[in-house]
Amino acid sequence: MRFHSRKWVKPEDLNANGTLFGGRVLAWIDEEAALYSIIQLENKKVVTKYMSEINFMSTAVKGDIIEIGVEAVKFGKSSLNLNCEVRNKMTQETIVTVDNIIMVNLDDDGKPKPHGKTKIEFVKDRLAKKEEEA
Amino acid sequence: MRFHSRKWVKPEDLNANGTLFGGRVLAWIDEEAALYSIIQLENKKVVTKYMSEINFMSTAVKGDIIEIGVEAVKFGKSSLNLNCEVRNKMTQETIVTVDNIIMVNLDDDGKPKPHGKTKIEFVKDRLAKKEEEA
Amino acid sequence: MRFHSRKWVKPEDLNANGTLFGGRVLAWIDEEAALYSIIQLENKKVVTKYMSEINFMSTAVKGDIIEIGVEAVKFGKSSLNLNCEVRNKMTQETIVTVDNIIMVNLDDDGKPKPHGKTKIEFVKDRLAKKEEEA
Amino acid sequence: MRFHSRKWVKPEDLNANGTLFGGRVLAWIDEEAALYSIIQLENKKVVTKYMSEINFMSTAVKGDIIEIGVEAVKFGKSSLNLNCEVRNKMTQETIVTVDNIIMVNLDDDGKPKPHGKTKIEFVKDRLAKKEEEA
Amino acid sequence: MRFHSRKWVKPEDLNANGTLFGGRVLAWIDEEAALYSIIQLENKKVVTKYMSEINFMSTAVKGDIIEIGVEAVKFGKSSLNLNCEVRNKMTQETIVTVDNIIMVNLDDDGKPKPHGKTKIEFVKDRLAKKEEEA
Amino acid sequence: MRFHSRKWVKPEDLNANGTLFGGRVLAWIDEEAALYSIIQLENKKVVTKYMSEINFMSTAVKGDIIEIGVEAVKFGKSSLNLNCEVRNKMTQETIVTVDNIIMVNLDDDGKPKPHGKTKIEFVKDRLAKKEEEA
Repeated sequence: MRFHSRKWVKPEDLNANGTLFGGRVLAWIDEEAALYSIIQLENKKVVTKYMSEINFMSTAVKGDIIEIGVEAVKFGKSSLNLNCEVRNKMTQETIVTVDNIIMVNLDDDGKPKPHGKTKIEFVKDRLAKKEEEA
Repeated sequence: MRFHSRKWVKPEDLNANGTLFGGRVLAWIDEEAALYSIIQLENKKVVTKYMSEINFMSTAVKGDIIEIGVEAVKFGKSSLNLNCEVRNKMTQETIVTVDNIIMVNLDDDGKPKPHGKTKIEFVKDRLAKKEEEA
Repeated sequence: MRFHSRKWVKPEDLNANGTLFGGRVLAWIDEEAALYSIIQLENKKVVTKYMSEINFMSTAVKGDIIEIGVEAVKFGKSSLNLNCEVRNKMTQETIVTVDNIIMVNLDDDGKPKPHGKTKIEFVKDRLAKKEEEA
Repeated sequence: MRFHSRKWVKPEDLNANGTLFGGRVLAWIDEEAALYSIIQLENKKVVTKYMSEINFMSTAVKGDIIEIGVEAVKFGKSSLNLNCEVRNKMTQETIVTVDNIIMVNLDDDGKPKPHGKTKIEFVKDRLAKKEEEA
Repeated sequence: MRFHSRKWVKPEDLNANGTLFGGRVLAWIDEEAALYSIIQLENKKVVTKYMSEINFMSTAVKGDIIEIGVEAVKFGKSSLNLNCEVRNKMTQETIVTVDNIIMVNLDDDGKPKPHGKTKIEFVKDRLAKKEEEA
Repeated sequence: MRFHSRKWVKPEDLNANGTLFGGRVLAWIDEEAALYSIIQLENKKVVTKYMSEINFMSTAVKGDIIEIGVEAVKFGKSSLNLNCEVRNKMTQETIVTVDNIIMVNLDDDGKPKPHGKTKIEFVKDRLAKKEEEA
């Protein structure tokens, strides 16, 4: 799994206990899953359909650096299954894992639409291919 | 289940598709679960430990009114199990359900602490009782 | 008066004194008044026209639970008068009261429009009636 | 009255009708009243105690520039009465006025404390005086 | 240079060190530059094209009052050069200066458009002139 | 240069023109520079001291995916020089570049402190080394 986005835990990310607000972590996961899917499916209209159980294994405090990893597990016809982990960048300790997030590819009317993708692609390869074909 | 907190879906709550951002819904659920537990356990140091699978059944758009229901399902020794539903206030259509959210009661050092509660209590009854005893 | 929406006072809700930021409370009241009116008037285009004097009677600190109560006081032709109280959920101590908030029902051009409502209605009754008529 | 702070109405400031969210305006007023009082009373612990009635006379849309004016009306023993107007910078049309906002000067325990001020002062004069005395 | 907008440093404006978050200051500068340009150029479609080097000379802490000054340095054909300073309102200590910010006036298609302005104008004079001509 | 953090441009990130708010981009850059430095210098007290000129080369719209790249250019005694680029993930088009960002390593009193680092390190290597030494 590749870890891309990083967050710096700031006062506005804390709950009233002074630890990282769980709801903030979930929002970060959902955003990362959405943008990962948009990149893979080359479609901006992608929504979260399902998340499997979420286990909060540790927390973080003000000033910690968090990183979020997402990876494609299965390409369905109009869906994409992802696996996600959030961890502390410095200690690599796991904060939360979500084994299965199902994202759905939509058409302009908001209906599921086949995406035609079957494996992970890299933007660089796509751009190189476009240039080649040009 | 009682539905308390209500949200008015505003531009800042939308994803790039113009529908309610899933991460925002999750943050709302987590906050509601936390404050419900704080009320029941009479302790401000309560954290989310676990959420069972999350099913996004419908979405919402700008201007919709959302309401969030939480109810206690089981009182453990230092934990509390909750059940949660988010729905559209006007149509009563379900947006998301989470069958099992486990909250943990902590002491000042952040360790699990027995809460001594066994059933749902109402703040009014507590206050009346205190007055009676005084 | 029924108290619905609840807020968990988080670091982002505090002023520089470490107490609940008054401006945040006012924003919460305005949102609650708006969504209550939208529900009652069955129209999404509702705006705040007037608030009577606002008395800050106590404050709150990080970790407190706040609840907001709104109730309809008078149904005008195109307006709705509300009464509002914000209080501490645990102690029931009043934080702010606003005796009279005037909301106005608008048409698509932003002009006042008669709403035809004369008393408080419940969404459940409306939905039951619709089903009956169907 | 002097108008200082200016705001650029952005998507996050809009309500679901696409006009400036009233709650946002109230939060801006409260912040401006607080910082004006902190400057005048030379004390960071100042809180809003009261606001007289609030009349929403016009609204604003995305991209508008808003300016907020505050002026001291009366210096009490431990209080300060302010007058506030929010208007559209380009058209000078009034959006909201609040005739009387009462701010209270607090000591470290949060109790009202005499501030010893009797008239509007300017930071430049204070600094010049300090230099002179040095 | 005239200092208009003021900010009250609140918990949500702090970085994890407990001092004013630099990124927040930059966002405040950019907003102030944008709204100053919109006022001068009488056009809502104005964007930031360039900022010269930024020197963070001091910082601020929770409860400080900040003020932001912007002034027009040069009127280009479709551009406007600004000079900006952010300082502590109470001590007048400089926090950040940016010597040159270039804003560009755009047409509806987002292309640079001549603005026809050659010097600083005041809204009051404009409104007086309009009235005179009417 | 490695691009890590990704952002999904949402309504709250837009200016009043409907394009990505420049101030938001600057805040994202500052946060990324800070957390990159914290990771490299193994110290949470790191602040931004200087940014060289900033050129806005293109913009982004709602739904775009942005990625932010930071790389260490020079390790000073108590400082760290960074180079930064923000680009569109899908097209790889550059949005902003900042050639030189100077971060300073602080001690507990907020004074510059030698960091003892001379080259880029990876967290994995550090953790492996610690384990080896144990």
